[in-house]
Amino acid sequence: MTIGIGLVGYGYWGPNLFRNFRNNADCRVIGIADKKVETREHIAAAFSDILAFEDVEMLIALPGVDAVVVATPVASHYDIARRALDAGKHVLLEKPMCATSDEASDLIERAKRKSLVLMVDHTFLFTGAVQMIKELVARSALGQVCYFDSLRVNLGLFQPDVNCLWDLAPHDLSIINYLIDDELIDVEASGYCHVNQVAPDMVYLTLHFRKNCIAHLNLSWMSPVKIRRFTIGGTEKMLVWDDLDEDQKIKIYSSGIHFQPEEQRSMIIPQYRIGDIHSPRLRKTEALNGVAEHFADVIQGKVPSIMAGNEGLKIVRTLELAQARLDNNLERVRSQRDKPL
Amino acid sequence: MTIGIGLVGYGYWGPNLFRNFRNNADCRVIGIADKKVETREHIAAAFSDILAFEDVEMLIALPGVDAVVVATPVASHYDIARRALDAGKHVLLEKPMCATSDEASDLIERAKRKSLVLMVDHTFLFTGAVQMIKELVARSALGQVCYFDSLRVNLGLFQPDVNCLWDLAPHDLSIINYLIDDELIDVEASGYCHVNQVAPDMVYLTLHFRKNCIAHLNLSWMSPVKIRRFTIGGTEKMLVWDDLDEDQKIKIYSSGIHFQPEEQRSMIIPQYRIGDIHSPRLRKTEALNGVAEHFADVIQGKVPSIMAGNEGLKIVRTLELAQARLDNNLERVRSQRDKPL
Amino acid sequence: MTIGIGLVGYGYWGPNLFRNFRNNADCRVIGIADKKVETREHIAAAFSDILAFEDVEMLIALPGVDAVVVATPVASHYDIARRALDAGKHVLLEKPMCATSDEASDLIERAKRKSLVLMVDHTFLFTGAVQMIKELVARSALGQVCYFDSLRVNLGLFQPDVNCLWDLAPHDLSIINYLIDDELIDVEASGYCHVNQVAPDMVYLTLHFRKNCIAHLNLSWMSPVKIRRFTIGGTEKMLVWDDLDEDQKIKIYSSGIHFQPEEQRSMIIPQYRIGDIHSPRLRKTEALNGVAEHFADVIQGKVPSIMAGNEGLKIVRTLELAQARLDNNLERVRSQRDKPL
Amino acid sequence: MTIGIGLVGYGYWGPNLFRNFRNNADCRVIGIADKKVETREHIAAAFSDILAFEDVEMLIALPGVDAVVVATPVASHYDIARRALDAGKHVLLEKPMCATSDEASDLIERAKRKSLVLMVDHTFLFTGAVQMIKELVARSALGQVCYFDSLRVNLGLFQPDVNCLWDLAPHDLSIINYLIDDELIDVEASGYCHVNQVAPDMVYLTLHFRKNCIAHLNLSWMSPVKIRRFTIGGTEKMLVWDDLDEDQKIKIYSSGIHFQPEEQRSMIIPQYRIGDIHSPRLRKTEALNGVAEHFADVIQGKVPSIMAGNEGLKIVRTLELAQARLDNNLERVRSQRDKPL
Repeated sequence: MTIGIGLVGYGYWGPNLFRNFRNNADCRVIGIADKKVETREHIAAAFSDILAFEDVEMLIALPGVDAVVVATPVASHYDIARRALDAGKHVLLEKPMCATSDEASDLIERAKRKSLVLMVDHTFLFTGAVQMIKELVARSALGQVCYFDSLRVNLGLFQPDVNCLWDLAPHDLSIINYLIDDELIDVEASGYCHVNQVAPDMVYLTLHFRKNCIAHLNLSWMSPVKIRRFTIGGTEKMLVWDDLDEDQKIKIYSSGIHFQPEEQRSMIIPQYRIGDIHSPRLRKTEALNGVAEHFADVIQGKVPSIMAGNEGLKIVRTLELAQARLDNNLERVRSQRDKPL
Repeated sequence: MTIGIGLVGYGYWGPNLFRNFRNNADCRVIGIADKKVETREHIAAAFSDILAFEDVEMLIALPGVDAVVVATPVASHYDIARRALDAGKHVLLEKPMCATSDEASDLIERAKRKSLVLMVDHTFLFTGAVQMIKELVARSALGQVCYFDSLRVNLGLFQPDVNCLWDLAPHDLSIINYLIDDELIDVEASGYCHVNQVAPDMVYLTLHFRKNCIAHLNLSWMSPVKIRRFTIGGTEKMLVWDDLDEDQKIKIYSSGIHFQPEEQRSMIIPQYRIGDIHSPRLRKTEALNGVAEHFADVIQGKVPSIMAGNEGLKIVRTLELAQARLDNNLERVRSQRDKPL
Repeated sequence: MTIGIGLVGYGYWGPNLFRNFRNNADCRVIGIADKKVETREHIAAAFSDILAFEDVEMLIALPGVDAVVVATPVASHYDIARRALDAGKHVLLEKPMCATSDEASDLIERAKRKSLVLMVDHTFLFTGAVQMIKELVARSALGQVCYFDSLRVNLGLFQPDVNCLWDLAPHDLSIINYLIDDELIDVEASGYCHVNQVAPDMVYLTLHFRKNCIAHLNLSWMSPVKIRRFTIGGTEKMLVWDDLDEDQKIKIYSSGIHFQPEEQRSMIIPQYRIGDIHSPRLRKTEALNGVAEHFADVIQGKVPSIMAGNEGLKIVRTLELAQARLDNNLERVRSQRDKPL
Repeated sequence: MTIGIGLVGYGYWGPNLFRNFRNNADCRVIGIADKKVETREHIAAAFSDILAFEDVEMLIALPGVDAVVVATPVASHYDIARRALDAGKHVLLEKPMCATSDEASDLIERAKRKSLVLMVDHTFLFTGAVQMIKELVARSALGQVCYFDSLRVNLGLFQPDVNCLWDLAPHDLSIINYLIDDELIDVEASGYCHVNQVAPDMVYLTLHFRKNCIAHLNLSWMSPVKIRRFTIGGTEKMLVWDDLDEDQKIKIYSSGIHFQPEEQRSMIIPQYRIGDIHSPRLRKTEALNGVAEHFADVIQGKVPSIMAGNEGLKIVRTLELAQARLDNNLERVRSQRDKPL
């Protein structure tokens, strides 16, 4: 049975979702809703078989629409998703899932009541790189994971409705949550607002997990160079994923962190195994294609979801916690700055 | 007049200091003190004109010794420097200057009383890269400096008497202090102890300065790759200094952070100027040679010091503050971790 | 007046030509001819306004078709282009222009007789990189150009109807001819056939030009890594164009070849100026879009062609000469190899 | 028994040889001969235990000198080596071995007659990289070696007594000869003289070997960037050695050239295995230290020489052949250039 797709929002990311769902054999895109008249005209001219709506309700109400894919600003996610779920439609939301954890919880509850699929598009989970890393971590090829270190910086693009934290951190959080099964016990956050006093454009996060694992995220819209560099330190091996390196996206270093027995730790100089570097070949298929396929598979009951609503909620909760810490720190620094010399 | 040099400590860094002071026309190395007998035997065999001592006092007491250069573990800095100053000898200390700010203050006071030169070897200040950056910042070529971001990571080497913070941060702190004239108003520090429970091996620092400038330092002994990457964001241009890139150590990006007038900041989308990249050619002389020359010049009254004792003290104070914040955070996280689930 | 476009061949490159001509305001793509029935069915399904033909003649004969764009294997170029020109249609041919210089000359003659535009798609000329280099060379920013050195290697792709020379060399030859106005006086060619005994898969060319300029091309289908590296040595500056470097495609080195006066050359040690590196920002528009625009502009008489038929002919002649030298060398080596030890 | 070493020539390379032989436990450097008086004065001042001579004969004649190491301009190699051999001393010559193959043959004959060791310092053979590659090739880890491709370019340094061919090619020739046991059957050479009309500063060599192997060398003193990139294509794997890449000097690509059976080669499209990349960790000891050790070991009869005089002769013969081809080509091009248009 083909799944009828209604797409809400045809701005920056919408066309990519459209293209991938259109190419998916299990899905058929029926209509698109977008507030801009020029966008609707463009859709009508380019795709004779696609209905274009101004009103989201009309799209949701279409009998052929089984699932609604939402690629609008985050502030509108909750309202659109709620209506779709209440109308009995499955929902795929862009990241971050919602503006608040309350919204996210409410959607999860509604989806559960109606046995509908609620999913968040954390696209990175479907890249060849993350799939490869997941496989390595799952079979303990790196040993025990000790730390994550992410450098995710670029110049712009400022989004009107999110700050740098909400824009960039969901990528790392979804990846870390996917890779390890651990409980976050503490978040530290600092940052700075260079351009817009209310929206940080550089954010530094330190996340502490229960099982002796730490994650540090350096997020910035202010870097002259785009960098996407994600390092994992393990007791057996370390891994560097440079997403912009076409030739060697992933390098596995045969150097692990060698732990000493607990009682000797304080007096023994650590030893490192230094060894070879290995760069596995990665799958080159488009990640978003995997998202569309996974959404269809979950709706059809073929597989359990790896990015269900509760995963999205977990990330929104971490963002809220980080934002609170960040606000607190920014405020303390501001008050320090205003003190007389 | 030639300056007679006595060198204390001939371990890892001492031989480099020896070589550079020996090559300096204004200095003459007279003797070396080192506790290891094999080291003293090696010195005696290799350099017939150099006296080797076990006892630091004897070296300091030599009439021909005008200045004492100290390359011993940091715990011994204060004691050796104090004796040298009290004996009327100028002093050059390796970084970090002392184990505590009290020690550093006391040395400054003693040097002042006897009008002696007290200096700290922050070698990086004499690299072609930092000299070039200083010149650019001094003539406002980057505009107003908005942020520093340093990635200073490698695998090992654990030093027995310092942790990762005291080992690596002095480099960045000395460079930042040299480049901008600003007041530190807040320090945040997080980190982790993987190998040795009392000595952090990964440390993240966020430094806030009074004039709207922020610095972030990612310091680690746990990275599979050595990285020395220092970024400066300015209102006119941004600069990346990759100290391991032989071909292009410094890249200047013609992209600046474009500030909006205060009242418009919250509503206007920022604009970036994206432009060319320029890599200036750098001087290739050895930095430590510049240190020796500078020490001699300051003793001879030719130039004021750019790394005097008060600079060293400032850095030790920052390290103490960061260490206190780090300890506090590590403790909070530990107590979180020990809570029942 | 809109130019009606008929496209012949919708395989690897055809879809790119289609997309760019379709997006060009001065052109309207009317029909496509392709021998494969599945391709024609795909076109019919995807683009309701495009006619699909099996027979090229029918496409050419369409009254609305003013110009024919040919993206078929090179063996068929001459026949299709001849029919189009004889029918009074302008022609854009993929590179290399024809299988022989006789074919190319004949087409030029036919186009001239009917005052039709005959052009070859040397796409690289419309990249931001080549446009920037052309501008630099035109205003002698590099001084006098002394040499070109091209490394154009990758793994596969074997084309059924051309060898590595005819596949890769046209790129470099079109760029060199575009950059300098000089006469080729000698070609040396060596190479090797690893996989297919009649088609070289590694070719080395040395081209000598009249005005003291030399070019060396290292072309290979056998390299484990893709490299597109083009170096220009000038008397004032040198330039490296690395087409796969997204951050710094072009680096200009402030180091020139310093000539001695003729009479002193043999005895004086040369001097190099070593200086800064500069990476200009490049235009990021798609090169093929520029090709479509240029073809339309030339048809409309707005500009003279920078890649007219005679440019294509010049390149085919060089390829023929190089192939002859290559065959000769391969034969000599083969006979050497067959000699008894 | 310690081997007494006499070193001739203390210019650019001599000090490196001195340091490594001085550190070798089996050797003792007794004296150095150099024509420059300042050099001799420097040696006398710095090393009280080393005798410095103007006259090579006096050094050779010293009873304690068992072996003579020659680091003078190539034109003087023959004369010095001949005298040393005739005086019964072992000889290590810098590369290239001699100015002519006749000279080299004569030295080999003299060494043989007196059962003396005659060796050429092809330092690269003792690098961790070449040792690793030799080991891989020896156990056929790359499959059958199909090609070598070397890019060995930099800016300057012009040597007064050799051209770019004789300066740079010996490195590649010694490495190739060390790696494969094959017979050279043809050499093609082209190049250019930019600065000095009699000495080519850019040279391109194509070497054909009997067993279906080809080597291409791109040698230049005219490149704005220094590159040392050596590629080996095998039927199982390909290897890239970038000697300036500190992190990954050697990359092994799991992609081999897949041969078709002879009778099918002309019609079948080749297939490539594309796979992982592996960078083995290399030994980091100084190569020249290995040369000193090897020279001592061969003199002491512990191992056979891997860079004996006949290896040096083989390389000089190839250089002579290449020079003849190069001269021929340069002459033909010059006569073409002088023809009226």
